Amino acid sequence: MLRCVLWYYICLMVRIYFDHASTTPVDPRVQDAMRPYFAQFFGNPSSILIEEGAEPRKAMDEARVRVAHLLNAETEEIIFTASATESNNLAIKGLALANMNRGKRILFSDIEHYSIIHQADLLRTLGFEVDYVRVDPHGVVDLEDLKKKATRETILVSIMHANLEIGTIEPLKEIGLFLKERAILFHSDGAGTCGQIPVDVKELLVDAMTFSGHQYYGPKGAAGLFLKKGVALRPFMQGGYQEMGYRAGTENVPALVGLGEASRLAAEEMTERVERLTALGQRLWKGIEKEIDYLHFTGHPTRRLPGHVSFWIEFVEGESLLLWLNLNNIASASGSACASNVLARDETGLKASHVLTAVGVPPEICHGSITFSLGRENTEADVDYALSTLPGIVEKLREMSPLYQRARGG
Amino acid sequence: MLRCVLWYYICLMVRIYFDHASTTPVDPRVQDAMRPYFAQFFGNPSSILIEEGAEPRKAMDEARVRVAHLLNAETEEIIFTASATESNNLAIKGLALANMNRGKRILFSDIEHYSIIHQADLLRTLGFEVDYVRVDPHGVVDLEDLKKKATRETILVSIMHANLEIGTIEPLKEIGLFLKERAILFHSDGAGTCGQIPVDVKELLVDAMTFSGHQYYGPKGAAGLFLKKGVALRPFMQGGYQEMGYRAGTENVPALVGLGEASRLAAEEMTERVERLTALGQRLWKGIEKEIDYLHFTGHPTRRLPGHVSFWIEFVEGESLLLWLNLNNIASASGSACASNVLARDETGLKASHVLTAVGVPPEICHGSITFSLGRENTEADVDYALSTLPGIVEKLREMSPLYQRARGG
Repeated sequence: MLRCVLWYYICLMVRIYFDHASTTPVDPRVQDAMRPYFAQFFGNPSSILIEEGAEPRKAMDEARVRVAHLLNAETEEIIFTASATESNNLAIKGLALANMNRGKRILFSDIEHYSIIHQADLLRTLGFEVDYVRVDPHGVVDLEDLKKKATRETILVSIMHANLEIGTIEPLKEIGLFLKERAILFHSDGAGTCGQIPVDVKELLVDAMTFSGHQYYGPKGAAGLFLKKGVALRPFMQGGYQEMGYRAGTENVPALVGLGEASRLAAEEMTERVERLTALGQRLWKGIEKEIDYLHFTGHPTRRLPGHVSFWIEFVEGESLLLWLNLNNIASASGSACASNVLARDETGLKASHVLTAVGVPPEICHGSITFSLGRENTEADVDYALSTLPGIVEKLREMSPLYQRARGG
Repeated sequence: MLRCVLWYYICLMVRIYFDHASTTPVDPRVQDAMRPYFAQFFGNPSSILIEEGAEPRKAMDEARVRVAHLLNAETEEIIFTASATESNNLAIKGLALANMNRGKRILFSDIEHYSIIHQADLLRTLGFEVDYVRVDPHGVVDLEDLKKKATRETILVSIMHANLEIGTIEPLKEIGLFLKERAILFHSDGAGTCGQIPVDVKELLVDAMTFSGHQYYGPKGAAGLFLKKGVALRPFMQGGYQEMGYRAGTENVPALVGLGEASRLAAEEMTERVERLTALGQRLWKGIEKEIDYLHFTGHPTRRLPGHVSFWIEFVEGESLLLWLNLNNIASASGSACASNVLARDETGLKASHVLTAVGVPPEICHGSITFSLGRENTEADVDYALSTLPGIVEKLREMSPLYQRARGG
């Protein structure tokens, strides 16, 4: 049976895409929804006095309703942007600048995305103090450390909802409860969770939350920020009066319509998608656990994203493994996509990422990890093909690693 | 003949779109080029080690080559963003922060777009001094005033290439020559010109220039900044290492491919498009001049955007005229689209825009202007229909205006 699957994939050159954490294909239904807004209803939604502005504006309003419904937010609490990176920049700089009269200390977790942690430099230039909250070996934010570091001067804490490299889902509600007591603003980067697992901004007690359409079968170029009513935010991008004055720039109507439709579909199919991905993820996890030794899973074993399996193998370079998997038609990731282009690699070489370092992997035996992030189009057969392919590749890489040979006494 | 045209438009309810300055429909050829990048080649271009990243990356590189060709820039001088507003924010804040060691004074013209002038507040918060250069009654930047205000402390001047409300094209080359002598950085907002008239960044002597795809039949959500090699710019949006480190965030591949294709088509068809639009614009201008009295054209009579006709009529409210034109199936603009939504109107009521004020229209008899901006799909018949419709509407509005009646001794 396994042999059949193997031949099927090899002969048909089927690609298996296990990198949904980087980006997802646009759902055909989303593409259909977008289509009329390129050339038929192409007007500028800010042109409110001419007919051409009406339909695009209506479509954008509808998209906002759908996103709000997905996150259990109010419609006017949704601000559209062009990317999760922009949303994170708007949230951190916007909340910091609007609330600096109350204090100038900001906390991030140790495992935030680059679009959060790389803001620290500019924030310091602007006179803010930035500190980092530790995570435990499973990547869960250390609440005691947070409590210690959340001093009176602290005005803002940003903790991601789920880490895309190691899959851990953070206990936002517990964090939110504590921050609420201290009247500290709470932002969460939900690019890894919104549209992918149930997210209720009211229950999670966040003041602001980033979401990103291309992570859940919506188009690239459409993302946004939930901003709780009454929370002060200074616009990050100045210009016209779009997005209730919070975000200037002509709205990307087709992409936002796509984001709305992707949100509607995600809300509708959430239970089914999560169940399916959870089952596939567990099948992959168990298979890998059984087949490969000296392997260490990363992230939390249970409080993790569905269909997300991440690990590192002693003395096996994550990037080499990724390249070999790619040659065998399996697309995976090693670190986040945003960190994988040339400049980042020049800086970090083949060291463990900042996330792996934060969860305490031993740098002398960990040389990068692999992340499999499954999605809607993946099947059990995909998982079985990966399981049949992986052990051979790992074996080959080990044979090539003198360090491994020495450590294992080979 | 005129009556025929009139009946044809009325019976078929044909809409005439004379608002290309706000936004343009996506060219079908551009849509075709974009299509494969939504679900087929949907990968993240930053995923450089897997096959899924290759084709999107290649397509983005190709788009960059095409935009560079359109502007006579080098490929590595093109930074992609999501909107002209973002490009203007990146340029002004990025150049200011990267060069503040040389001085802290910045000059804008009096008629810049909101995405330039609304940055002044934040710049002042950051310790910069912002001053404004006057324009003459035709909207042309006053070079003497610029020379006077460009003190030693001045590090950056931003003057738009063409104003979309009044159509005037600024003498960038002359300004550039002067600024080069003084070693002052020169940014120009080219959202109204790039892809629409020939633009050569080398000839215009700009250090940075904003361009915007949806202004020339490309998609919304794709724009960029030309940045001359060697000019220091601090990234505005922090995060991953996309766009050579200048602009973080997952790239909107389909939109950027569309921008590339729109740029290729614009370069190829430039002469023909400009000639056609110039002829249509002149036909409209002459017709209006002949038909309507107490009318004042705005902007420069000859150094203006092709197919761009703008004017105000004594005692006739621009917005009322726009609404009546809309009811008669003609889409036009009154002020810029970015200024026409609710918040802006609350603030400015029915006063003349900041642009009209800068060119010195008398506020007691000017209550807003009209901008007709023609585009590729417009025909002579469209122009003739507008010419046959406009006088009647103006007459009706005048009858309703007691101020007009009093002024004309009616």
